[in-house]
Amino acid sequence: MPLTDIDAVVFDVYGTLLDVDSIEARRREVAPEAAGLVGLWRAKQLEYSFVRTLVDDYVDFWAITEAALDYALATLGVALDPAGRTQLLDAWLALEPFPEVPAALAALEGRPLAVLSNGSLAMLDAALTHSGLKSSFSAVLSADTVRRFKPHPAVYALAPAWLRTPAARVLFCSANGFDVAGAQRFGLRVCHVSRGGTPLDPLGVEPDATIRSLAELPALLGKGA
Amino acid sequence: MPLTDIDAVVFDVYGTLLDVDSIEARRREVAPEAAGLVGLWRAKQLEYSFVRTLVDDYVDFWAITEAALDYALATLGVALDPAGRTQLLDAWLALEPFPEVPAALAALEGRPLAVLSNGSLAMLDAALTHSGLKSSFSAVLSADTVRRFKPHPAVYALAPAWLRTPAARVLFCSANGFDVAGAQRFGLRVCHVSRGGTPLDPLGVEPDATIRSLAELPALLGKGA
Repeated sequence: MPLTDIDAVVFDVYGTLLDVDSIEARRREVAPEAAGLVGLWRAKQLEYSFVRTLVDDYVDFWAITEAALDYALATLGVALDPAGRTQLLDAWLALEPFPEVPAALAALEGRPLAVLSNGSLAMLDAALTHSGLKSSFSAVLSADTVRRFKPHPAVYALAPAWLRTPAARVLFCSANGFDVAGAQRFGLRVCHVSRGGTPLDPLGVEPDATIRSLAELPALLGKGA
Repeated sequence: MPLTDIDAVVFDVYGTLLDVDSIEARRREVAPEAAGLVGLWRAKQLEYSFVRTLVDDYVDFWAITEAALDYALATLGVALDPAGRTQLLDAWLALEPFPEVPAALAALEGRPLAVLSNGSLAMLDAALTHSGLKSSFSAVLSADTVRRFKPHPAVYALAPAWLRTPAARVLFCSANGFDVAGAQRFGLRVCHVSRGGTPLDPLGVEPDATIRSLAELPALLGKGA
């Protein structure tokens, strides 16, 4: 059954629109011996964004990403020259969209679309430009403007403020469980993007919809695909 | 150089006083085929405690631990009967102290000592009783009483409130980087317990002291070991 009364659709970026798996391919080139690096890097990137928000000591997502990489390198005992470190970090600026994303966004044309991400504006600008998605969006909403990271409610509040519409008329799409929980607790409508049928983190929320890829989104909003 | 003007010493529990590595031994008995289970379980336990606090939707640490285990089992496709699940969960109630801990706590006798943990009181009671440490402490301070998890400042505030002493006269000891950051941002004095020389998460804080085990603590407080 289509969702009704939706004024705008807002998307998480990393892992929802853009595929972060290419970071692992970059790692294999730059640091072929460091098998567990990307897993630890991303876990620490997530942890640091949560912790910095909880202790109210903000630095932007690029600084978080750098600190998490440096910790992962130190913990695994991987020596990397500055050029290699830069190559790994820059992978965040050159992510590819999931294959269905460009067509799905095109099919939603006419409706206001935005991204809402923990990434800094510079990171988002680079990644959305590289992936060719930037012109699909009328707003790039970044946690950096409120100096807290998702799932803090202040970040989700950017979406209804942008549109001057009630939170319940905004549909937020994310593949990340913590993001689904945060958006729903704030009061947005939420669509969980479960590629490959990955289970939703059991955080006490039930999304308004669950789809296997963004290709299902136009139909969910009552537009034939 | 010894730390001066310390009225009380407060300890994190899991990973600082009690060794959580025995959970992996239990896993090998109960679910020998599920190699990555404990790592994912603990990562999700940590993540859910952060997320539940950020979105202000508290459940206690036992419920967090159950949800994290169930997610890890589902994600890895591990089928476990209810008895096996209970055995894994109950490992949290039967952790052993790190070897130096009983003697280190005995050497601090005469000074008020407490634990400050994300664990629920029931979990802490069971684990401190099993490990034989309970009688060392004059207070068991649990995140459950403020319905938020560390590193939220409300949890650290329990320590000076318990003693009616300024935060800067309380020494907090933890092996966990997020906990070092949270305690220091709140205003406690902080000692990082770095067993095996593990690097401190780069969260912008510098602990007042770093020790390799709690055996160094009496000397740090100006008492010969």
